[in-house]
Amino acid sequence: MSHPNQNTTTGTAYLVGAGPGDPELLTVKARRLLDEADVVFHDNLVGDDLVETIPDCTSVENVGKRPGGERTPQAEINDLLVREARAGRDVVRLKGGDPTTFGRGGEEAEYLARHGVPFEFVPGVTSAIAAPSAAGIPATHRDHASALAVVTGHEDPTKPDSAIDWDALASIVSAGGTLVVLMGVGRLPDNVAALEDCGVCPDTPVAMVERATLPSERTVTGTLETIVEKAQNADVEPPAVTVVGDVVNVRETVANCLGGSAGEVAPAVGVGRVEEEIGVNQQ
Amino acid sequence: MSHPNQNTTTGTAYLVGAGPGDPELLTVKARRLLDEADVVFHDNLVGDDLVETIPDCTSVENVGKRPGGERTPQAEINDLLVREARAGRDVVRLKGGDPTTFGRGGEEAEYLARHGVPFEFVPGVTSAIAAPSAAGIPATHRDHASALAVVTGHEDPTKPDSAIDWDALASIVSAGGTLVVLMGVGRLPDNVAALEDCGVCPDTPVAMVERATLPSERTVTGTLETIVEKAQNADVEPPAVTVVGDVVNVRETVANCLGGSAGEVAPAVGVGRVEEEIGVNQQ
Repeated sequence: MSHPNQNTTTGTAYLVGAGPGDPELLTVKARRLLDEADVVFHDNLVGDDLVETIPDCTSVENVGKRPGGERTPQAEINDLLVREARAGRDVVRLKGGDPTTFGRGGEEAEYLARHGVPFEFVPGVTSAIAAPSAAGIPATHRDHASALAVVTGHEDPTKPDSAIDWDALASIVSAGGTLVVLMGVGRLPDNVAALEDCGVCPDTPVAMVERATLPSERTVTGTLETIVEKAQNADVEPPAVTVVGDVVNVRETVANCLGGSAGEVAPAVGVGRVEEEIGVNQQ
Repeated sequence: MSHPNQNTTTGTAYLVGAGPGDPELLTVKARRLLDEADVVFHDNLVGDDLVETIPDCTSVENVGKRPGGERTPQAEINDLLVREARAGRDVVRLKGGDPTTFGRGGEEAEYLARHGVPFEFVPGVTSAIAAPSAAGIPATHRDHASALAVVTGHEDPTKPDSAIDWDALASIVSAGGTLVVLMGVGRLPDNVAALEDCGVCPDTPVAMVERATLPSERTVTGTLETIVEKAQNADVEPPAVTVVGDVVNVRETVANCLGGSAGEVAPAVGVGRVEEEIGVNQQ
């Protein structure tokens, strides 16, 4: 790979979004950079299907967080990126979704810049939008959502120093807007309670989309009042994206004609209770 | 192109995101669908560079809105999609950014489903995230933004004035979150005033990114207090994305090492006042 920075032998670090899961939802640019990179550091949200497409001659390392296990500390990842680039290698730091959206891309960029390493953000398709749309839920709709808000769900909303302003999010939902919660499976009951405490109507529709855009994608729908029990019954596990707002109702209108995330059109078939809880891609 | 729906000769309508501007920020899937489609309907935000890559044998029509001029009414676009699919053609409806994010993809999907046309959302890289990141501004940052809110700056004129809850957006910004306003050049003074009226500190950093990810990209930075004058002085024109929040400050830290949207690394050079107002891609 050529080095655009002609005056030094320092490589470039590309902070690249891998998209929501389906390897075809990688950008053309990300594809090119993966094919040309000397070394790739990816996180756990990047699927094996995608990792396997990286050329054999490329050094590939998983620096992701392992649930309940070892993880590479962020400081170590930062150092790896700088060290490899300084050795003249072009580095791809591959992150699930988009690298700047709850992905620490900003912190890595600051570290790279402080160490004089040329870098570039290469945006990706964010799960915040792709997961709902895979389930037939548009992030916004002219009749419903005039605002879209995205937060991560793994913060404790009962902590006094919680940086998430649930009051503001509740206002957006109550005004017909859409709230997307990333990484919110573990704290779903707390987050739902926080919204209810802030006055969001219990009938507000909610959907959880698990493993969005992958063949094993599942969708569970309910309301703010019912979603905790429904998610529990369906054993929803991370990674899953939660959508709160009137746009969730669009799914009902369009599900019969909605194509699957694998690119195939699989019209939904009513099968009683399962239809209510399991997405079209599973049927 | 094969028709996955084997029981009829109806084609499939793909509601596809074209990404923020750079043709390389199309997804691999969108690229494949464009290469295989029988007919493509695109809007004005899709650049000529991208349209020119569609195979010559494909029927291509611009159904976009022309500012101050003729536009294809939405009802007519809906009918076109249904008619072409019913004639057995696979249709790509190509939209700037992501098709479900302030892009009427939800409405088109509902219309298609009501008429029994199989469809699929094919998500794209949204300008709401890609435009800031092209300018060195991460949508979120661990030290600053715990929430990201996205709105459009020009409202549906038939909606009541209160459709956007500026109080809620102001709370998100004041709590260190990020607000992205799409298509907000025309109403910039109104939107800035709305945030100030809702108590957002006038020193809050603001950036406007014009023609993001294209070679002619420009960035103007300021504060809530100064951005209207600065945008006017720099003659910022649509399409431009406005970012409000502390994350805008990351740009200063990283600009010296930030690679350009065209994939080249062009370190910023200080040139006095211009440095303050014009993005690295112009230097």
